[in-house]
Amino acid sequence: MNDLILAHLEKIRQQAPLIHNITNFVVMGSSANILLAIGASPVMAHCEDEIAEMTGIASALVLNIGTLQPSWIKSMIIAGKAANKKGIPVILDPVGAGATWLRTSSVHRIMDEVRVSVLRGNASEVLSLFQDDIKTKGVDSSIGLSEEAKPIIRQKAKELDTIIGISGEVDFITDGNNDYNIRHGHPIMTKVTGLGCGLSAVVGTFCAVADTVNAETAASAFSFYGQVGQIAEKQASLPGSFYTAFIDTLADFPKE
Amino acid sequence: MNDLILAHLEKIRQQAPLIHNITNFVVMGSSANILLAIGASPVMAHCEDEIAEMTGIASALVLNIGTLQPSWIKSMIIAGKAANKKGIPVILDPVGAGATWLRTSSVHRIMDEVRVSVLRGNASEVLSLFQDDIKTKGVDSSIGLSEEAKPIIRQKAKELDTIIGISGEVDFITDGNNDYNIRHGHPIMTKVTGLGCGLSAVVGTFCAVADTVNAETAASAFSFYGQVGQIAEKQASLPGSFYTAFIDTLADFPKE
Amino acid sequence: MNDLILAHLEKIRQQAPLIHNITNFVVMGSSANILLAIGASPVMAHCEDEIAEMTGIASALVLNIGTLQPSWIKSMIIAGKAANKKGIPVILDPVGAGATWLRTSSVHRIMDEVRVSVLRGNASEVLSLFQDDIKTKGVDSSIGLSEEAKPIIRQKAKELDTIIGISGEVDFITDGNNDYNIRHGHPIMTKVTGLGCGLSAVVGTFCAVADTVNAETAASAFSFYGQVGQIAEKQASLPGSFYTAFIDTLADFPKE
Repeated sequence: MNDLILAHLEKIRQQAPLIHNITNFVVMGSSANILLAIGASPVMAHCEDEIAEMTGIASALVLNIGTLQPSWIKSMIIAGKAANKKGIPVILDPVGAGATWLRTSSVHRIMDEVRVSVLRGNASEVLSLFQDDIKTKGVDSSIGLSEEAKPIIRQKAKELDTIIGISGEVDFITDGNNDYNIRHGHPIMTKVTGLGCGLSAVVGTFCAVADTVNAETAASAFSFYGQVGQIAEKQASLPGSFYTAFIDTLADFPKE
Repeated sequence: MNDLILAHLEKIRQQAPLIHNITNFVVMGSSANILLAIGASPVMAHCEDEIAEMTGIASALVLNIGTLQPSWIKSMIIAGKAANKKGIPVILDPVGAGATWLRTSSVHRIMDEVRVSVLRGNASEVLSLFQDDIKTKGVDSSIGLSEEAKPIIRQKAKELDTIIGISGEVDFITDGNNDYNIRHGHPIMTKVTGLGCGLSAVVGTFCAVADTVNAETAASAFSFYGQVGQIAEKQASLPGSFYTAFIDTLADFPKE
Repeated sequence: MNDLILAHLEKIRQQAPLIHNITNFVVMGSSANILLAIGASPVMAHCEDEIAEMTGIASALVLNIGTLQPSWIKSMIIAGKAANKKGIPVILDPVGAGATWLRTSSVHRIMDEVRVSVLRGNASEVLSLFQDDIKTKGVDSSIGLSEEAKPIIRQKAKELDTIIGISGEVDFITDGNNDYNIRHGHPIMTKVTGLGCGLSAVVGTFCAVADTVNAETAASAFSFYGQVGQIAEKQASLPGSFYTAFIDTLADFPKE
């Protein structure tokens, strides 16, 4: 898989694909820095009056419901439809789904109206979309992903024709037929805000330059990101300096 | 007081209390990182359609008026009432009160409708709420806290049944009967954006896990935060690297 | 020019001028930290109900259209008129002009209604305002500034009575009669989000303390900022640690 990662990174650094993010206020700065570090060109725009036009010049669209308000959901749907029409990948990060009705129902509404290439979240965010009894603790997962839950995820991936990627101790990525279990990453990554959201943006960038968007494309982004986390943690094991090392490592991967 | 700090930190790290923040756009990222560093689970949500539900699963509510707009004031009041009903602490940070009528009047409106456990700001922000002739320079205090002003603060704390905590060279925390004067902290803390707002969030977290929310609880949060600032400043005395050291020290306190 | 830089910095550090920013969500934190590092007192406020009052106590107004929505354009015009009335400098950063109609037309609308002291952007953002065939790649410039384009910039600077500053490999600042070509800076500065926006805020701060706001004032801010970038890059050549070094160097310039 590392060959695939390097091939994607080379294309990203050459093409500097424009990644259109409609994301939450907390992570706008860090997502932009993560995208710049890997060589992408990020833009954040959410206003209904420009949204389709901005998506029209982008190579991928990343939707993230972290600090939702109604006008933004509308913009996400308009942008999603523009992305579908143009044929660029759409990544959806269901931040906090399972914590409130607004979040859970907004994800369903977006997925009803927009063809989503990759749905990426933590275990309770994703499972709460399919099981009413799963609740999310704000934006942090309340559960790990059990083996019992995997068939549900696979079935939903097939039904929705969407790659589903779940972050956790072991990341699980599936299109319903092909599973990838990624054992990279480090718990400190949950102690810095926006690293999950940043992964969704990185998945979008890998998909933007991939010849074919499939579960392996998404899994390669998870693997890259997790490896970067591990390398950075060896340099700095406290969250402030870890974040700095993480950004540096994204830009410097693979260090010679 | 350090025993109390350590007792609170231990509970925070064990329980990872969910802290619901309705805060300003400038500091959302840094407040989330500060809360994660001490072991809390932050969530930012401001939409009227989910606000009461989110507060309903939280252990404390932190309101901050730093980049105000009318719909957010409404959300703050709805969330504040939900917090009062649930019996969780409400912290209010009156950012920029005394700089514009909107800010000063919004604080009064919130305090009229919501029982606030702790009001935390700088000297001119807090005093401008009670004295019309005090003006704030944007979000920076225009004055230090004089001895003459302390009786006014004490009286208001009693009247409002609210702990008042004022940051400054010496922090002053009072419930009207008991005063705490905290001589920790360092001037460089005013050279990084959002550290005052971050303190309000930390006070909220200490209150979330405290057996009783009283002036000493709030004072222990001030003392912890100021000590962290002093330790970090010894590692890094310029604002960029100081911020990194500050986050690291929050996570690592007390370094063995 | 370094004497002028030092003279401005000395005044900024003495006066701590209040800089009112109506800027985008991505860079609010970094712009605040950049302004604090040089010694200014930043405030972010965008609500129509307080905007004129906040501008009324400020020493400069910085407008930035990076994450636009209609109500903010209205606030920018109200604040701009208040700044004009008060006689304080107005800096306009046309982030993403040339990428969408909303952005390009909003800049024209603001410039029709507000006297702008300095317009600062990258080459395609600025040229797209005057030439319909120039497009911007999101918020990154699609072009460098050619010699052929300079007469157009000079003519527009004269017509609009506005200093125009264009960031690039060589920065170009002109009032139509006097040109400044600044050869400082480093490409890594484009790999950290918000450094362009931060420059606009620094230009605003230099203008706030200058005896006369002219092209040389703006050019001195560009030169200072570029030198800081070069110094910081020598300390840290990857984007995460570069950002930290950049903030440190802003605060520490000129290192003894």
